[in-house]
Amino acid sequence: MRIVFLGTGGSFPTKERNVGSVALQVGGDIILFDCGEGTQRQLLYTTLSFMKIKRIYISHLHGDHFFGLPGLVQTMGMNQRKDPLEILGPQESGPHLQRILDAGFGFNPFEIRVRELADWHTETEGELTITNCQVNHTVPSLAIAVQEKDKRGKFDREKAVELGVPPGPLFSKLTNGRTVEVDGRTIEPDQVMGPPRKGKKFVYCGDTAPCDSIREIAKDADVLVYESTFAHELEEKAKDFMHSTNVQAAQVAKECNVKHLILNHISPRYSGEDVQNMLEDCRKVHPETHIASDLDDLVLTAEGLKESREKEQDHRPG
Amino acid sequence: MRIVFLGTGGSFPTKERNVGSVALQVGGDIILFDCGEGTQRQLLYTTLSFMKIKRIYISHLHGDHFFGLPGLVQTMGMNQRKDPLEILGPQESGPHLQRILDAGFGFNPFEIRVRELADWHTETEGELTITNCQVNHTVPSLAIAVQEKDKRGKFDREKAVELGVPPGPLFSKLTNGRTVEVDGRTIEPDQVMGPPRKGKKFVYCGDTAPCDSIREIAKDADVLVYESTFAHELEEKAKDFMHSTNVQAAQVAKECNVKHLILNHISPRYSGEDVQNMLEDCRKVHPETHIASDLDDLVLTAEGLKESREKEQDHRPG
Repeated sequence: MRIVFLGTGGSFPTKERNVGSVALQVGGDIILFDCGEGTQRQLLYTTLSFMKIKRIYISHLHGDHFFGLPGLVQTMGMNQRKDPLEILGPQESGPHLQRILDAGFGFNPFEIRVRELADWHTETEGELTITNCQVNHTVPSLAIAVQEKDKRGKFDREKAVELGVPPGPLFSKLTNGRTVEVDGRTIEPDQVMGPPRKGKKFVYCGDTAPCDSIREIAKDADVLVYESTFAHELEEKAKDFMHSTNVQAAQVAKECNVKHLILNHISPRYSGEDVQNMLEDCRKVHPETHIASDLDDLVLTAEGLKESREKEQDHRPG
Repeated sequence: MRIVFLGTGGSFPTKERNVGSVALQVGGDIILFDCGEGTQRQLLYTTLSFMKIKRIYISHLHGDHFFGLPGLVQTMGMNQRKDPLEILGPQESGPHLQRILDAGFGFNPFEIRVRELADWHTETEGELTITNCQVNHTVPSLAIAVQEKDKRGKFDREKAVELGVPPGPLFSKLTNGRTVEVDGRTIEPDQVMGPPRKGKKFVYCGDTAPCDSIREIAKDADVLVYESTFAHELEEKAKDFMHSTNVQAAQVAKECNVKHLILNHISPRYSGEDVQNMLEDCRKVHPETHIASDLDDLVLTAEGLKESREKEQDHRPG
């Protein structure tokens, strides 16, 4: 899984942070979570191809999360996209999404499927199982969990040789879960295969106050991308606007055994040292916390979360 | 008049050029011409305040000219704008503009007045006379001429002293166009005032093929901002899509005695040397031609067109 932060700010852009969008690449396909204004230009500063975007989740209908949608769609069309595009949003989002997609005299040569998602809906996309639920914001707002299938274990080549299996087609049979015969002996796959490797779980959460549904959907996630509009000192303000603070985010991550918490949707009021302080306060609660910067490009591997080798060198300052 | 190019590309953004928007500042007020996606962020890289924008002209309803509108309006609201905002577009634009402004659950604490403009409509805004007309594109598209009032001539202080007028209140009277008496003699203002200085004329043209109406509205303009989607070699393509080439733009400027032609809306296919070649071909027809780059910040003075001292130093590359 590759995770690219296209915009990490909340409310409106600053020089440092564009408004929100996160790309998740699994295999060749990309799922986009939110699409703030300017997302299509941020994509130009990465190695991601916007033509590979299969679906776009709009967590909720505040402008900083979806005003980039019509421009991105129009640009896909001008670049001869043929594949259909799924645009998925929470309850009540359909007419709003359709309205912004219908503004102006554009022409799309590909099918756009706009869908409102029911609470706790699950579907599959290739090898992925995707579940969404409603979280707790001033307007309907989604969290989305993407679960990879478990992968087969590692093939122990030394062990196979030791058991007398000759390198070649029998190796493939064993790795594909089939029993083989060698000199009248039966070799079972589990004699040479390591334990299955757990598929990764990625969770993206739209704007929300801490709530039970995010705790449920984010349980045991490898990565939770979660909003931190305010710092701890503004907890009352966060409550009034149904947002979360940095420390609340860390508490949620700790409570649901999240491996890596990545904060985004940082208010324009914070930069530099403030952000560093927010991070330190989080790490007291949940050590594996990061605050995303625009164009952070990460991969989640068996060894953990690392900077992607794909990272585009020639990108904007800030 | 100060002219700031917020975006100079056509169709979709590139690393070098955002999609179109031009700000015209006269006195403290700003008029915005078009508002492509990302315009609000481009404004952060200038010294212009988006709260000073009084009116926004949307030349036509192709997305690269207006998808930045809802985000800019929402950000004005979040920053406590109280002043009303005029949004003006061509015929048939009203419902589209309203649709994009109504998408999502935003809240604007100020009045937005959306108006469709009739062909060859004229109105005043403070000291400015603003006229619009329809040009020749695939959808209704506007050109807008902004004419400053003529200003009184320069006061000739030496001449006044020579005529025996004592420095002080009588100088003010004369500069304000009033006759004064000195030692029984009558001094008329035109004895000490230079000829009135012609107000500047700025013309912004939306996407268009060359046509009579642009030649009429741009007549004798000090500055004409005009599209150059294609280079001369693609004249057929320009015709098919009802755009202009660089050389056609220069011919229009020459025909209507424009002082300074500034080209924008450059297709994403052109960069570097191509753009330099486009410029050179133009200058053979109309020497006073420039091709705008993003964040170019110019002032139009009696001496001509110069780089503004206001130009923000800390801006994006490209």
